[in-house]
Amino acid sequence: MYEEKILIGTDTTSGISPQILDAILVASNTKTLPYGNDVFTEKCKKIVKNIFENSDLEIIPMVSGTASNSLALSSFLRSYGSVICHSNAHINKDEGGAPEFFSGGGKLLTISNSLGRIKAEDLLKKIDEINFKRKSSPGISGVSITQLAENGTLYSLGEIDAISKICKKNNLYLHMDGARFSNALASQQDISPAEATWKVGVDCLSLGATKNGALAAELIIFFNKSLAKEARYLIKQTGHVMPKTRFITAQLNAWFKDGLWLKLAKTANKNALYLRNKLSEFNDFKILYLTQGNEVFVKMTYLSYEKILKLNIIPNLWDQIDKEHLVVRFVTSFETTTTQIDEIIGRLKTFF
Amino acid sequence: MYEEKILIGTDTTSGISPQILDAILVASNTKTLPYGNDVFTEKCKKIVKNIFENSDLEIIPMVSGTASNSLALSSFLRSYGSVICHSNAHINKDEGGAPEFFSGGGKLLTISNSLGRIKAEDLLKKIDEINFKRKSSPGISGVSITQLAENGTLYSLGEIDAISKICKKNNLYLHMDGARFSNALASQQDISPAEATWKVGVDCLSLGATKNGALAAELIIFFNKSLAKEARYLIKQTGHVMPKTRFITAQLNAWFKDGLWLKLAKTANKNALYLRNKLSEFNDFKILYLTQGNEVFVKMTYLSYEKILKLNIIPNLWDQIDKEHLVVRFVTSFETTTTQIDEIIGRLKTFF
Amino acid sequence: MYEEKILIGTDTTSGISPQILDAILVASNTKTLPYGNDVFTEKCKKIVKNIFENSDLEIIPMVSGTASNSLALSSFLRSYGSVICHSNAHINKDEGGAPEFFSGGGKLLTISNSLGRIKAEDLLKKIDEINFKRKSSPGISGVSITQLAENGTLYSLGEIDAISKICKKNNLYLHMDGARFSNALASQQDISPAEATWKVGVDCLSLGATKNGALAAELIIFFNKSLAKEARYLIKQTGHVMPKTRFITAQLNAWFKDGLWLKLAKTANKNALYLRNKLSEFNDFKILYLTQGNEVFVKMTYLSYEKILKLNIIPNLWDQIDKEHLVVRFVTSFETTTTQIDEIIGRLKTFF
Amino acid sequence: MYEEKILIGTDTTSGISPQILDAILVASNTKTLPYGNDVFTEKCKKIVKNIFENSDLEIIPMVSGTASNSLALSSFLRSYGSVICHSNAHINKDEGGAPEFFSGGGKLLTISNSLGRIKAEDLLKKIDEINFKRKSSPGISGVSITQLAENGTLYSLGEIDAISKICKKNNLYLHMDGARFSNALASQQDISPAEATWKVGVDCLSLGATKNGALAAELIIFFNKSLAKEARYLIKQTGHVMPKTRFITAQLNAWFKDGLWLKLAKTANKNALYLRNKLSEFNDFKILYLTQGNEVFVKMTYLSYEKILKLNIIPNLWDQIDKEHLVVRFVTSFETTTTQIDEIIGRLKTFF
Repeated sequence: MYEEKILIGTDTTSGISPQILDAILVASNTKTLPYGNDVFTEKCKKIVKNIFENSDLEIIPMVSGTASNSLALSSFLRSYGSVICHSNAHINKDEGGAPEFFSGGGKLLTISNSLGRIKAEDLLKKIDEINFKRKSSPGISGVSITQLAENGTLYSLGEIDAISKICKKNNLYLHMDGARFSNALASQQDISPAEATWKVGVDCLSLGATKNGALAAELIIFFNKSLAKEARYLIKQTGHVMPKTRFITAQLNAWFKDGLWLKLAKTANKNALYLRNKLSEFNDFKILYLTQGNEVFVKMTYLSYEKILKLNIIPNLWDQIDKEHLVVRFVTSFETTTTQIDEIIGRLKTFF
Repeated sequence: MYEEKILIGTDTTSGISPQILDAILVASNTKTLPYGNDVFTEKCKKIVKNIFENSDLEIIPMVSGTASNSLALSSFLRSYGSVICHSNAHINKDEGGAPEFFSGGGKLLTISNSLGRIKAEDLLKKIDEINFKRKSSPGISGVSITQLAENGTLYSLGEIDAISKICKKNNLYLHMDGARFSNALASQQDISPAEATWKVGVDCLSLGATKNGALAAELIIFFNKSLAKEARYLIKQTGHVMPKTRFITAQLNAWFKDGLWLKLAKTANKNALYLRNKLSEFNDFKILYLTQGNEVFVKMTYLSYEKILKLNIIPNLWDQIDKEHLVVRFVTSFETTTTQIDEIIGRLKTFF
Repeated sequence: MYEEKILIGTDTTSGISPQILDAILVASNTKTLPYGNDVFTEKCKKIVKNIFENSDLEIIPMVSGTASNSLALSSFLRSYGSVICHSNAHINKDEGGAPEFFSGGGKLLTISNSLGRIKAEDLLKKIDEINFKRKSSPGISGVSITQLAENGTLYSLGEIDAISKICKKNNLYLHMDGARFSNALASQQDISPAEATWKVGVDCLSLGATKNGALAAELIIFFNKSLAKEARYLIKQTGHVMPKTRFITAQLNAWFKDGLWLKLAKTANKNALYLRNKLSEFNDFKILYLTQGNEVFVKMTYLSYEKILKLNIIPNLWDQIDKEHLVVRFVTSFETTTTQIDEIIGRLKTFF
Repeated sequence: MYEEKILIGTDTTSGISPQILDAILVASNTKTLPYGNDVFTEKCKKIVKNIFENSDLEIIPMVSGTASNSLALSSFLRSYGSVICHSNAHINKDEGGAPEFFSGGGKLLTISNSLGRIKAEDLLKKIDEINFKRKSSPGISGVSITQLAENGTLYSLGEIDAISKICKKNNLYLHMDGARFSNALASQQDISPAEATWKVGVDCLSLGATKNGALAAELIIFFNKSLAKEARYLIKQTGHVMPKTRFITAQLNAWFKDGLWLKLAKTANKNALYLRNKLSEFNDFKILYLTQGNEVFVKMTYLSYEKILKLNIIPNLWDQIDKEHLVVRFVTSFETTTTQIDEIIGRLKTFF
């Protein structure tokens, strides 16, 4: 019926932003030493220090978000330790057991709720519960939160601050999975990268550019520099040192330049809201959660989902609620346009 | 007030049964090759085959219950796999992350309920939930149940059968943590070891004698022989091959001889019931769960618990319910006598 | 003295070949599903089957050579196993312990000689030696050879065949680290990719394009398909699945197209020979080994090496022989020109 | 021909010394808390501090020698690190890859020589060689030596001191595998346990009693207390905490009492020398190495070895030299008598 397939289920279907492609070309023509001993990587470090208003941080350029999370966690998680995260966290459900592997058997202890974010009071309770039987259980090493959370909502600065205070009090490190950190930042008014991270107690950030304009570029930022040492050893042993490192940092430099990262994120976010509004007009769709980044979650029947596929629209099958109902995810990217969304809505009107 | 300390919190405070001590002495006077190439180990294999009415099983003698569980699990659990167990399972809460370590990062996926045992319907739901997002999650390799369960109750044959049928249907292995298997068996009328295990689909059993009369003796029994191969490699690499293996199997042979294992267990079980009945007469104590083995769980206030300690009675502080209430565990062993229990009750009457 | 720095120590200083850059651009403009479910990856599989004349192989696209080796090895190496390789193998000396980590503790057993390649007779002897004490040592799982070898020389087909026959006889898998496989292939007349690999018994090949024209693109080719299953699980858990997989396979497709991979390699090889001949005319330099690919190894004094650095020529400090003598490596790439080499030689004449 | 089999290949065929058996009996009758919270373990700590003249050490009671070595090493060896040892070290050849497993992939780097012990000058050379290419190789974490060495010879205090000085200079920890430390100590005049260990810079000692009178008892002694912390976590996770810990420490306490450990060792050593002298009179046997403990190594032909087996004498087949020649090991224990040795020699005279 509709020939062109519209992929709207994930931002990893997107391409490379022109500015980043240009940067790759420039890097190709610039001969440098491999393994990060190059001007692009040197410059990247300066840019990040500047953007995050922190001259005392360490960075590790990566190409994989899963590895970026696992390496960051492994900087403080040992085989006999544990990290507390939300039960829906990407590290718990979608990374094939990578944190457990990188740490040689470390445990993820989860907090479940329908909010999709860790609440400070639940964290306190969890810590108390674990410490009660401390002797034979793995000790707690840290906490990991996801910004944007997996359900597309934002941790407020107050929420992070409350979590971070508990961490400090209990000697726990605080990691932030920022695969969509740029979308989170772009959707908040007047909050700086520094305020969104280390100023509220984040020890390390796994910052992703791949979903938002890069070919493959991620960055671990250690605001707590002492953590970087362990990760530097493990990055080689886990096969995540890229010989031609300049191609990662060149991407990142272009991404940060002139606020490109936030511009791309704003486009994605704006279109997500546009899509949400349009979808909410259909009786068959129930919108779930707030849309505070570039994701829209919709509750619908299996039947509705199958109809959508027949329209050659491909969202992401996110979760099953019961035998009849599903959660379906729509994700916009920096390349999404209102025209595309109108096309989606137009098609949907055929069947709904 | 009372000088003699009464340890009633765990069966691992007990000593060695005289028959087993004798067997150690005999083994000491019998020179054999080390590493299991000895007549005691040979005989142990025959005894186990006979008792479990199965000539096609493999055994691995062990000294550690934690290692016995982890090795058994590692026979089918890889780093990228997972095992489903109850959230209160010993392997999940009390073994320091051993299953995760032995498997290099395998995951325990837990089912929580107040019953303390996995229900077939919850297992089905869990499997369904995991398989829904199979691609990026670790696959499920098996299920582990504990008999006696951690709360001292029994899985009925019907319950195990239902779980095992789900396992077979989903190509999952079924492991039984039998640290108190002898207590479980002794409390059931007319159920044979075979009926309690492989005849209801158990693939491997971690059978413990340490809590019930041995110095240190555990046994992994592989009813599914193909699983033993992997474990045989790992037992050396994890440092669990004892050079003087004959001292483990000599203990086990004496334990099995003339039904000693069940006799010892029956003594413990009988006294647990006796203790339960006595404790239930105190208004300050609320007995939890059924007592189907050698454990009695009591809900009481922190204050009550502290009073008990002052009487020089040492039960096990099992769990906290809220800021005021605790779960306290009493465990009897083959050495417990009614006289001891009467002494405990007598002391309790001082304060309660 | 000479302002422009000439990097001649490794092929990873090179950029991206224009054909591959074009392919990245095309892939950016083609929307696809992530995680390898795309037309580029589908096409890559077909191309590889065609080039290697084998319709029954499996491929895994990678971005890291270290991970490509370790994942390939982990397809048959368990924690309690071992792999035999040359003591100078990249997997043994230059990958930060990655094979040991990926396998959770697997061992590399090494054969040392000045030839730089494993000799069949030494392999036999090693296997015999290990099997002698089989019970308590880790068993041998496979053999890994490097083509080009680390010292820039070639395994002849006869040499590989002899090794492979020993492997088959002893149930060992044969892995080839082909980080410079294209250089090796390009330097041999009338040998097809198939003849150079599976037809002489290679079970899996870690094929590298990064050093020879790609941004970052590697490929594990499993001629023995059964091995791919294990690797598929581990690639996710080790964080080596790239969301935008199409950018890897698009590079590889361009690399293979119209024999580009061999053309680029021939350019590098030709210039290596040219450089070797020029260097051999200096009395201070002693050329080591044959130059059968794109590498030239030179024995010289520390003093000579320091003089070279002063000329702003940067070769690779490969090894130390004694307190006075070093081995220095020169590596050409697809971008190296005779003009550059003449410039190097010209500068050298200033001091030598 | 001779009905009674004489096991003379290893000291692990021996039984339990009467004093240690008594101690087990006493411990059985003494109820205590499990997991090391008992008077026997408390007392053991005091005894060790006293014997080793060091009030600032930590101990961990173990039942497995392999685990004792691996846990001690894991206190400083990470997955990305390495430990230097002799190529014939037990940890390298006979522990199934346990150090690699415990550390999640740590590497053993070996020094080979016919001496059987690490020479200081070779250690220096090895360190230099590894540090030369430090960036991509795993760093060195420590050194492990075996006292008695695997070939039954002694490290002199001077040799250990030289090694230890190199360790300190290079920030490396020094571990001693003391599976036969009591035999080593007993064969040296006027050297105290302290002088033999921490006074010459040993950071941790894996001390074995199992081969010399115990059922199963080993002890990790951390002279460098900071190392114990890591090991304490790992011991639980690796399944090496024995619930009834008192049975290990009761054995050790009896072993140390009134110098029993050295008396038992002296008996074994004396008989080893007696056996050596007798064996040296046979033309078919060539004695190798010095006999400085309880081991005698003999070079002989395969044919001679087979003849010995026909006499129902079972030594240990240690190594093969070439197609015709073997190294055969004879080991005496605290139970060996001159009568037994005379019986062995008598039998040998039948055929030799």
